[in-house]
Amino acid sequence: MTRFALTVEYDGRPFMGWQRQDHGPSVQQAIEDAAFAVTGERVAVHAAGRTDAGVHGLGMRAHLDIAKDIAPFRLMEALNARVRPHPVAILDCVAVADDWHARFSCVARHYEYRIVQRRAPLTWERGLAWRIAADLDAEAMHAAAQILVGRHDFTTFRSAHCQADSPLRTLDRLDVARSGDRVVVLASARSFLHHQVRSMVGCLALVGQGKWSAADLRAALGARDRAALGLNAPSDGLYFVRADYP
Amino acid sequence: MTRFALTVEYDGRPFMGWQRQDHGPSVQQAIEDAAFAVTGERVAVHAAGRTDAGVHGLGMRAHLDIAKDIAPFRLMEALNARVRPHPVAILDCVAVADDWHARFSCVARHYEYRIVQRRAPLTWERGLAWRIAADLDAEAMHAAAQILVGRHDFTTFRSAHCQADSPLRTLDRLDVARSGDRVVVLASARSFLHHQVRSMVGCLALVGQGKWSAADLRAALGARDRAALGLNAPSDGLYFVRADYP
Repeated sequence: MTRFALTVEYDGRPFMGWQRQDHGPSVQQAIEDAAFAVTGERVAVHAAGRTDAGVHGLGMRAHLDIAKDIAPFRLMEALNARVRPHPVAILDCVAVADDWHARFSCVARHYEYRIVQRRAPLTWERGLAWRIAADLDAEAMHAAAQILVGRHDFTTFRSAHCQADSPLRTLDRLDVARSGDRVVVLASARSFLHHQVRSMVGCLALVGQGKWSAADLRAALGARDRAALGLNAPSDGLYFVRADYP
Repeated sequence: MTRFALTVEYDGRPFMGWQRQDHGPSVQQAIEDAAFAVTGERVAVHAAGRTDAGVHGLGMRAHLDIAKDIAPFRLMEALNARVRPHPVAILDCVAVADDWHARFSCVARHYEYRIVQRRAPLTWERGLAWRIAADLDAEAMHAAAQILVGRHDFTTFRSAHCQADSPLRTLDRLDVARSGDRVVVLASARSFLHHQVRSMVGCLALVGQGKWSAADLRAALGARDRAALGLNAPSDGLYFVRADYP
């Protein structure tokens, strides 16, 4: 039995999310089915993050255990051949120690959120970014975002369905930067609560439009109440970028 | 009657191309139908370039004549509302002189061709770039590309269906640059022959893989024979970026 660590890219649009679901396609199932086609083994694929429906992966990390004797490069090539036509790609595959775990060994997770500021609808980026017609003050968004950095009770920014034991999280980075008509938010933490990135981005978008002040954001955080959330950003613009391991 | 100049973005994947066709959807028809829905007028939309099936537009220019009294901004908003669900967006709309013509007044056209160099299949970029698994030497591609810059008989790089009177064209710019796993080709000319950019990119990809030398590219140009073409790149990676007017 060999444990393989995968780096996975996927287009979240056709999926119910990362996690296997009874009622629709998932990234996990697409990879597990491909692994079965390659090895004849029914394996479980574990990921660093279980992204929601419509959320994309640029460098998701995952692992699976295979009994068949197969080299990592061959496994990667075979999975990519068998995972079609799903928009999922294995970018990297390496053998790792038996106690390496994509989720539990992960020490940092990095997300990117893409906003396109313009009046016209999106075309080739439909489902790949959040379009906002109003002017966004990215500098004000970045300044306000620093209120959220650090160790806080993020109850306000947590979905009602969040299964984490504690609402306490340490946000290591929340950077907002503009490039032309694009505003990108980068978020890093050891772990995130359910909907935390989308909820933070939604409120930052209110700040960017001048509908919320930085003080409003601080009050929302302090309220520790989901009802104090201003806005939850759509899944379209969210990308799981990278997971770090010791 | 007012003539309006449009700047148009579109995802080429679902279309038979820019030009109206009997057998499938076109960008031209999508905009003409939207204009009819807005104004009740059956108008013809003329573009700077008639892109092929699967080719994308980032800043295509087009014009149409409208009798109804309507402000440019309102026309743009109404066209964007009515062109749905087609992946077409009017980014800009201005009133122009009656003799301004998107095609005939255009003095320069700029295309971009996007290559992704990697073994794994594309996911969210499927149909939006050309994936090449082999290593590409972008510097060798750029150096060879300069052979094509200038005034030449581009018969080798011209589709058998090209309707232009002359195979002579002046290529003003053909730049190749790498950024990570991306190789982008920028091509500028007053006008291009049918399939010229894709044919040039296809041969440059051969140079990048070491299958062709710069001398092979020079010989292909000199042959003035379509049979001397090495490879025609797929439509996926081609974007009409911008048109210039005096």
